[in-house]
Amino acid sequence: MQINPNKDTQLCMSLSGRPGNFGLRFHNHLYEQLGLNFYYKAFSSQDLPGAVGGIRALGIRGCGVSMPFKEACIALVDELDPSAAAIQSINTIVNTNGHLKAYNTDYIAIAQLLQSHAVPKDATFALRGSGGMAKAVASALRDGGYRNGLIVARNEGAGRALAESLGYEWQAELGARRPQMLINVTPIGMTGGPEADQLAFEPETIAAAETVFDVVAIPSETPLIVRARAEGKRVITGLEVIAIQALEQFVLYTGVRPNLEQFEKAVAFARSA
Amino acid sequence: MQINPNKDTQLCMSLSGRPGNFGLRFHNHLYEQLGLNFYYKAFSSQDLPGAVGGIRALGIRGCGVSMPFKEACIALVDELDPSAAAIQSINTIVNTNGHLKAYNTDYIAIAQLLQSHAVPKDATFALRGSGGMAKAVASALRDGGYRNGLIVARNEGAGRALAESLGYEWQAELGARRPQMLINVTPIGMTGGPEADQLAFEPETIAAAETVFDVVAIPSETPLIVRARAEGKRVITGLEVIAIQALEQFVLYTGVRPNLEQFEKAVAFARSA
Repeated sequence: MQINPNKDTQLCMSLSGRPGNFGLRFHNHLYEQLGLNFYYKAFSSQDLPGAVGGIRALGIRGCGVSMPFKEACIALVDELDPSAAAIQSINTIVNTNGHLKAYNTDYIAIAQLLQSHAVPKDATFALRGSGGMAKAVASALRDGGYRNGLIVARNEGAGRALAESLGYEWQAELGARRPQMLINVTPIGMTGGPEADQLAFEPETIAAAETVFDVVAIPSETPLIVRARAEGKRVITGLEVIAIQALEQFVLYTGVRPNLEQFEKAVAFARSA
Repeated sequence: MQINPNKDTQLCMSLSGRPGNFGLRFHNHLYEQLGLNFYYKAFSSQDLPGAVGGIRALGIRGCGVSMPFKEACIALVDELDPSAAAIQSINTIVNTNGHLKAYNTDYIAIAQLLQSHAVPKDATFALRGSGGMAKAVASALRDGGYRNGLIVARNEGAGRALAESLGYEWQAELGARRPQMLINVTPIGMTGGPEADQLAFEPETIAAAETVFDVVAIPSETPLIVRARAEGKRVITGLEVIAIQALEQFVLYTGVRPNLEQFEKAVAFARSA
């Protein structure tokens, strides 16, 4: 049921260096399906304090925050949810009467996915990557009780710091290790990147694993995921991450939790652009 | 042709103490009729500098400005169009790559209406009122070559100042004068006000006039307009003012001028809420 815009329509938005279509299509489709008087708009900005000031001054209800604003936003909000405080990185701002509370729904989505895919807590894992998203994934693993972890990152400073902050090991390369869960949090396999057609782990490493988790969402069927599926592994994709993190944003903004059918229709619509 | 929202959708907005539905329905209906990738949202704010900062930081294309922000906005923009400079009151901000230029499309609409209704330039007139809108109307009259004017306002300070700034007379009451054009720029006749059922001018004054112009838009068929129509006078209504000022905003924001049929459909839609 589509609601005609009126003076009571609430605005939600995203703020990112390069806006995409997924979030705005996902949210606007659910608003329409559920008959909620909301509208979602994607913005970019060269002036983060001005943009967050605008959220306050205009009473914009919620804001998704993407690269490169996830850390810089922290100083501009009033409160951090534990999901954001744990990793000092936010991707969601909720504005309640001028009070801005920040969340990290990537962290929330990853924690949910480890549960819903029933990944055993005693699984050994290797996580490739050391950036902001690697921090969210590794923190969700640690907080989920996954203790046998190895951070694999060529950037020794970032990799060691991430590993040590969470009680994991660090190595520049995976070497001869054969972990039960492989997690890619690098751009390997991403459309348009220099390594779009590459596997984030060696074939024999994949063959030895039980679970393969790739955070890359475009495409979500990366070479790593395609191979892992073919070998019958438990698979978690980047599409699941972006869809569930968007769903959790939706719930935070509107107070309404869509049912599974509504959620899946919104994901399909959001991807069809 | 409705455009699905996407990352290139441009936002226009309004800023007012008490948002209404007319503007947002008018603009959104025309965007859809003309297949323009825009969305219009009504906002209120307690923080005008923050709101205008948000327009800049988020690249919001245009903003309609209503009470009580029409004067205070002047210090926050980069440039005043002559329509706004003349009266030091704005109702429209156009954002071109971060440069904010302010206009007053009320002034533009009134000037157009005096022309399109072919009100003779030598008509004597009395204008009741001394607020911001009275300034816009009186300035449009002066700049349109109407020289024989009387400002009628019980507020002597504001009334005298307005009259003297434009070379008109001032009186607290109309008295025995019988001007050829009567202009109401007070809330008399406005729905919900204490004088909703009153005539802004005496019956014999109306009978002696040729032209009656009432700026009140809700309803546009005020007691004054109803009586003037019944007596066959040339009539200009507040609906014409708000519709044409909105049309001129639309042209400034989008660069597209709707045809008469599109304009009239948008006005009918905007009024039907």
